[in-house]
Amino acid sequence: MTKMNAYKQIPFYNTKLSRGYWKNRQDIASSVSIFSVYDRFEETGRFEALKFEWKPGMPNEPHIFWESDAAKWIESAAYMLETKYDERLVEKCDALIDLMEEHQEENGYFNIHFTVVEPDQRFKKRTDHELYCAGHLMEAACAYYHATGKRKLLDVMEKYAELIDKVFCKEQSAAFLTPGHEEIELALVKMYNVTKKERYLEMASWFIEQRGRQIEDTYGSVTPEYHQSHLPVREQKTAEGHSVRAMYLYMAMADLAYEKNDKTLFDACVTLLKNVAEKRMYITGGIGSARQGEAFTVDYDLQNITAYTETCAALALALFARRMSLISPEGWFADVAERALYNGMMSGISMDGKSFFYENPLEIHPYLLTRHVSQKRQEELPITQRLEVFSCSCCPPNITRVIASIADFMYTYGEDTLFVHHYMDGVTDFEGHKIVMKTDYPACGRVEIAANGFAKRMALRIPLWCRRFALTVNGKEAKYELKSGYAYIDIEKDDVVSLDMAMEAKWVEANRKVFDSAQKVALYRGPVVYCAEAVDNGEDLCDVLVDPRAEIKLTEGEFGLNDLLVTAYRRSDFDALYRDYECDRQETTLRFIPYYAFANRGESEMLVWFKHC
Amino acid sequence: MTKMNAYKQIPFYNTKLSRGYWKNRQDIASSVSIFSVYDRFEETGRFEALKFEWKPGMPNEPHIFWESDAAKWIESAAYMLETKYDERLVEKCDALIDLMEEHQEENGYFNIHFTVVEPDQRFKKRTDHELYCAGHLMEAACAYYHATGKRKLLDVMEKYAELIDKVFCKEQSAAFLTPGHEEIELALVKMYNVTKKERYLEMASWFIEQRGRQIEDTYGSVTPEYHQSHLPVREQKTAEGHSVRAMYLYMAMADLAYEKNDKTLFDACVTLLKNVAEKRMYITGGIGSARQGEAFTVDYDLQNITAYTETCAALALALFARRMSLISPEGWFADVAERALYNGMMSGISMDGKSFFYENPLEIHPYLLTRHVSQKRQEELPITQRLEVFSCSCCPPNITRVIASIADFMYTYGEDTLFVHHYMDGVTDFEGHKIVMKTDYPACGRVEIAANGFAKRMALRIPLWCRRFALTVNGKEAKYELKSGYAYIDIEKDDVVSLDMAMEAKWVEANRKVFDSAQKVALYRGPVVYCAEAVDNGEDLCDVLVDPRAEIKLTEGEFGLNDLLVTAYRRSDFDALYRDYECDRQETTLRFIPYYAFANRGESEMLVWFKHC
Repeated sequence: MTKMNAYKQIPFYNTKLSRGYWKNRQDIASSVSIFSVYDRFEETGRFEALKFEWKPGMPNEPHIFWESDAAKWIESAAYMLETKYDERLVEKCDALIDLMEEHQEENGYFNIHFTVVEPDQRFKKRTDHELYCAGHLMEAACAYYHATGKRKLLDVMEKYAELIDKVFCKEQSAAFLTPGHEEIELALVKMYNVTKKERYLEMASWFIEQRGRQIEDTYGSVTPEYHQSHLPVREQKTAEGHSVRAMYLYMAMADLAYEKNDKTLFDACVTLLKNVAEKRMYITGGIGSARQGEAFTVDYDLQNITAYTETCAALALALFARRMSLISPEGWFADVAERALYNGMMSGISMDGKSFFYENPLEIHPYLLTRHVSQKRQEELPITQRLEVFSCSCCPPNITRVIASIADFMYTYGEDTLFVHHYMDGVTDFEGHKIVMKTDYPACGRVEIAANGFAKRMALRIPLWCRRFALTVNGKEAKYELKSGYAYIDIEKDDVVSLDMAMEAKWVEANRKVFDSAQKVALYRGPVVYCAEAVDNGEDLCDVLVDPRAEIKLTEGEFGLNDLLVTAYRRSDFDALYRDYECDRQETTLRFIPYYAFANRGESEMLVWFKHC
Repeated sequence: MTKMNAYKQIPFYNTKLSRGYWKNRQDIASSVSIFSVYDRFEETGRFEALKFEWKPGMPNEPHIFWESDAAKWIESAAYMLETKYDERLVEKCDALIDLMEEHQEENGYFNIHFTVVEPDQRFKKRTDHELYCAGHLMEAACAYYHATGKRKLLDVMEKYAELIDKVFCKEQSAAFLTPGHEEIELALVKMYNVTKKERYLEMASWFIEQRGRQIEDTYGSVTPEYHQSHLPVREQKTAEGHSVRAMYLYMAMADLAYEKNDKTLFDACVTLLKNVAEKRMYITGGIGSARQGEAFTVDYDLQNITAYTETCAALALALFARRMSLISPEGWFADVAERALYNGMMSGISMDGKSFFYENPLEIHPYLLTRHVSQKRQEELPITQRLEVFSCSCCPPNITRVIASIADFMYTYGEDTLFVHHYMDGVTDFEGHKIVMKTDYPACGRVEIAANGFAKRMALRIPLWCRRFALTVNGKEAKYELKSGYAYIDIEKDDVVSLDMAMEAKWVEANRKVFDSAQKVALYRGPVVYCAEAVDNGEDLCDVLVDPRAEIKLTEGEFGLNDLLVTAYRRSDFDALYRDYECDRQETTLRFIPYYAFANRGESEMLVWFKHC
């Protein structure tokens, strides 16, 4: 049996993306998003809060998760600094970190809310994100230290970690055993990776192993499932509760399985990811279908209009699946990650990089937002236009940190094999070798990779969506072995491996149990799911039948990829509310755009799943 | 121009139904429902409350609308007594009425809640059903007086009406001008009809005319639309707000238009009913699509799973439309009534007459009721099984009173013409004539009517659903004139008029703007809408495509009418959550049952609108 940690990651900071989809999105993130998010956070008092000057009665009461916003912003900036030095980012980070250091207490404690708002509630409120904030600050500390060599924040967080260790793990004097919002567990593994101090790994392990072993609180309006505290983690078989929390937990479980060579923990992760991927995931990789609790519900409950599918949940699913790909190169892990990255995550950010979706529905009827004429307060439905900042603004700096570190998804290696999980055009400098990948993916399916002596074997992922591919070495047909979604091929030092994946636009259908999408079809090309908007096609998209047997035409698109033109049918209009059925089909052409690009041209009806003829 | 009150009603109590659909349902209502509802009301303290002995701290605090439940129960019993004397009903009514008389105050006031719970809030809380209760008691008083000749309750209510007149109309010393829940307006018209006191008509008129002329309160969480108080009633163009309140208002408007020969008021009613029938009504005649406010929303917003469509709203729509048929014999009025009666109303009561739906959705997935695994409290969705009583139990005694007086829908007359609006097998004794109707409607479309000298002309409604019919007199083809949905035919004293309506099962489709039903079809036969349940057809009904071009077969049914068998297609099952589209259609047969009969065999998936091939 292979060890859990047989393979290693090639970290993103070894890769410089050259062009294409992710390079473009990185450029926007580092030139626009990072500053726009900073400005919004500044305006809303999130950075001011770090001065610890708030007093009761003043505006902008520091929220329980505000320093996590600052932390993810610093982490995003740090990742951008790995590729390109930007004095503006360094100055901003240093200023924020100075404030953090200044306000750390003697004993190591650092939390804004539980210092200026509820100082008597420290380590007492399980649901109130105290250790979650600590976790994000640890991630920021590790990232900023690696990017700049500056260890001020790392020192702060090491000192805070010591306090947490004492209070939670050693003395167990806190009012709760495990945090209501997971995050610190995976952050502690990062701390271990940076500092090599085993104790951090043990702390992470301690939090994970305590989870679900006892009832920790009365849970207010939610059940233990909400916090993934209904069972010990190894016994959890279905993805339950708040979907971001669940993913952060599973990430830490995968990290620990890897670091501690823990097979049963890995098996638990496989079971949970299988449940997500096979029963509880939208075609977009969005997860957490319910607004109530931002949560998973039950198998196959994937309603489109109300799809909550938080941006953070989709990206966290990708991050979890990436960890699984590292441990075990099974194609479906990277397939899940890819689905979430290109669709449910990237729909969370506007094309101009300035605004964000928290929720990413698969069907939008704008008029539903104000339909309750008799009510002052409308129903809570996903908004139809992205915003620059939210009161709970976790998604914007979360998506910027993933975009900035997207190359993490590309490579792992081990046993003389280079695993190529995701295709992006870029040059990787690693251990004295240059790995060069050339591709226009996902605009087309051709990829060229030269490992230049780094490995003797290459394993290229053949995505689930890919039905036909050709693999050549130096232009000649090559022998390869197909195993668990990867094509393994022996290579020489100067070999250029070419993978040519037929990237046809295709219709997909859902399991019959998914009642809201049953007997409907959705369109995809490669890893990208498409949708149609009224702005291109006129209203009443639910009244359109697409013809899944007709040819799908590629046409120029304005969102980085081709748009797709499909044959469809509408009924001729009639005034009556009801009429006897008539077979009435007027042929029309429907333009589909990438799902990630919806709502970039004003408010518009949008639909992913279409009825068909 | 015809006068508004050119035609007269033949009241239900002149008719004895002989057999068929409504006779069967009346028998169940008078042998089972009336006693079952009584027992549940007794158990829940609704009748005990009439002793006015409740004190703070005691259980069963009298709710603001409890006497309206008692009133509608008395009214139902009274209507049953018109057909068949039942000592048990009389005793129960008398006992309740004795309590009412006993607790009426010297000045005429009578209300349980505002005597024992909030005595200092009398006539101060617009939203709290005080005049609504008075209205239902007036209706009960009129009904019981007519059925039994006993005028105790009528005296009570005349005395109370005098107080209301003084406080509201003359002194205007109440804290509000018009009631938050309409009902007293139509009840006052009934009081006028029974007593012939014009003042009641003027009071009704006063309440109607004041409505919407000024902002009456701050409306809490609702807008003025909720109470139909956003505009003077003659200026209201769309059906807004709480759907039962809206219908009760419109009923009174129609009553006043009729009694006062008020053409503009009638025109307002036409506009409002048109908006309902053409933009805001489910295929079942259900109205009020939103749980929030039990209300209308916007045109075409007719979602199926969440359809609120209260039983009371459907039956009130029928009662409103019946008033419109009286004023002006236009077929679409009776078409609307018929749609609501056979479908959205009758789904409200179980086949055994014991239990009731408050909400009547058009699509049920039972698992949705408990899908919020992470939440202690589940989402509010329509229940999937009828209950015997509700905390707000308006629907049970409302449906019993309509079933007991259903023959009200049959005939109006005037200008030597007998208008036959709805078809039921029965004998009508009226003004010395016997009108005999023989039919198995809605099991089949054949009707025989003998007016026996009552009129020189008969106008038979040709329902909207009827595409072919034959009209004969004494077995011979007859000349008739078709006008506004009625076939006018001259008759002699002994003529037997036969109407033979081809009653094929047919598919109906919805306007493209109804996004939840667009490109779907529903099945109906005659006035009855059908649905399919998983108990007959297996689960995952949303994955079934029906074939609207295939033959529909009639087969024996267990719910009073034929069931229907249709050709349909399912996909073969597959495990994956998603797969590339395959044209995969396995032919199957689907059994449809009348919609009114759904959920009579345990919890089951149910669907009205089907995708089709």
